[in-house]
Amino acid sequence: MADWLTTLHTDTPQEGFELAITLARKGVAYTQPDAEVRDKLRPAYAEHADSLTAASHVIATHFQTIAAANNYWK
Amino acid sequence: MADWLTTLHTDTPQEGFELAITLARKGVAYTQPDAEVRDKLRPAYAEHADSLTAASHVIATHFQTIAAANNYWK
Amino acid sequence: MADWLTTLHTDTPQEGFELAITLARKGVAYTQPDAEVRDKLRPAYAEHADSLTAASHVIATHFQTIAAANNYWK
Amino acid sequence: MADWLTTLHTDTPQEGFELAITLARKGVAYTQPDAEVRDKLRPAYAEHADSLTAASHVIATHFQTIAAANNYWK
Amino acid sequence: MADWLTTLHTDTPQEGFELAITLARKGVAYTQPDAEVRDKLRPAYAEHADSLTAASHVIATHFQTIAAANNYWK
Amino acid sequence: MADWLTTLHTDTPQEGFELAITLARKGVAYTQPDAEVRDKLRPAYAEHADSLTAASHVIATHFQTIAAANNYWK
Repeated sequence: MADWLTTLHTDTPQEGFELAITLARKGVAYTQPDAEVRDKLRPAYAEHADSLTAASHVIATHFQTIAAANNYWK
Repeated sequence: MADWLTTLHTDTPQEGFELAITLARKGVAYTQPDAEVRDKLRPAYAEHADSLTAASHVIATHFQTIAAANNYWK
Repeated sequence: MADWLTTLHTDTPQEGFELAITLARKGVAYTQPDAEVRDKLRPAYAEHADSLTAASHVIATHFQTIAAANNYWK
Repeated sequence: MADWLTTLHTDTPQEGFELAITLARKGVAYTQPDAEVRDKLRPAYAEHADSLTAASHVIATHFQTIAAANNYWK
Repeated sequence: MADWLTTLHTDTPQEGFELAITLARKGVAYTQPDAEVRDKLRPAYAEHADSLTAASHVIATHFQTIAAANNYWK
Repeated sequence: MADWLTTLHTDTPQEGFELAITLARKGVAYTQPDAEVRDKLRPAYAEHADSLTAASHVIATHFQTIAAANNYWK
């Protein structure tokens, strides 16, 4: 796998949030490396409220890390 | 997507809590970008106690980040 | 919504724990603002062990924040 | 409810772990204040592996707080 | 119950990880003190992927605590 | 079990992320030591979106620890 994460630094909190989303998805992609399978799972998943909440929770966990890494963009 | 998160600073803990709610919802919105689909999911979801608890947990996780970013509004 | 959270400071750990409970419930109330619906959900929920554990987990997450905000009441 | 949490300080990590268990149970007890109902729920719950894991997770979350409060008993 | 946790200090990260596993199991054992019941639950549980992931999550939570207690073995 | 975790230090955030994946899997492997059983569970698991999200959550939790251990690779 090519380099995809060279720094946790971002210029803004929003970019940090978007990096958190990337990390959450990478956690899935490492576990299920077949992109076709992941694409197949997406429709059902994205229409299931509890699945979306669970995805949002993973993002929140990564955002904690990234926010700390950026000293909360103070 | 337009700028929606330029700072984690809030004037009061309550505004911080409300920002945590925004972040929790944004985590859902990035995963399911279709607002119509999200609106369709809401009624069932909002009448299911475990779904509400899970949503509250995501808020709690973001509130940790925001509270730290604001030095706990001390 | 009126002001309901002006400080994370509490005099004792127990009051901090009770504030954590308030925050956990507020996370639910912002997501489901209809108090009647929430009251309707309570009986079933409060007799389901896994739901109670999940609620306790949200409280634990908020208590982390509040304990840090109070420097652990040292 | 009488005073039940006046300090997060404990003499040993083990006492801290046991306090974490107390906090996890208190989170349940505040949500379901009827002890008879809680006792009725226990047997099924305590024979369900996933329920036990979830309970252990809440304890782990509280133990983080208590360990930090005690500066990790260093 | 005899003394089983007198320190969070470990010599290596791996021993810290193994201590995290012990803490996760102790959280279960305090909730279900009957070892026979726990042994009966293990086979089904250990062949259920989601149960294993949940157990791994509890371990991860305790490992955070233990890693911090050991200043990350720096 | 041979030494598999001698340091939390990694050269890059990406290696830290990959170490988080290793830790998440080790948490499973200690709980279900039979590699054949784990291999048998993988196919179903890796095609279930909620299972993948849960795995991603464990990775996120470990990544918090590893990122802190590396001072966020600043």
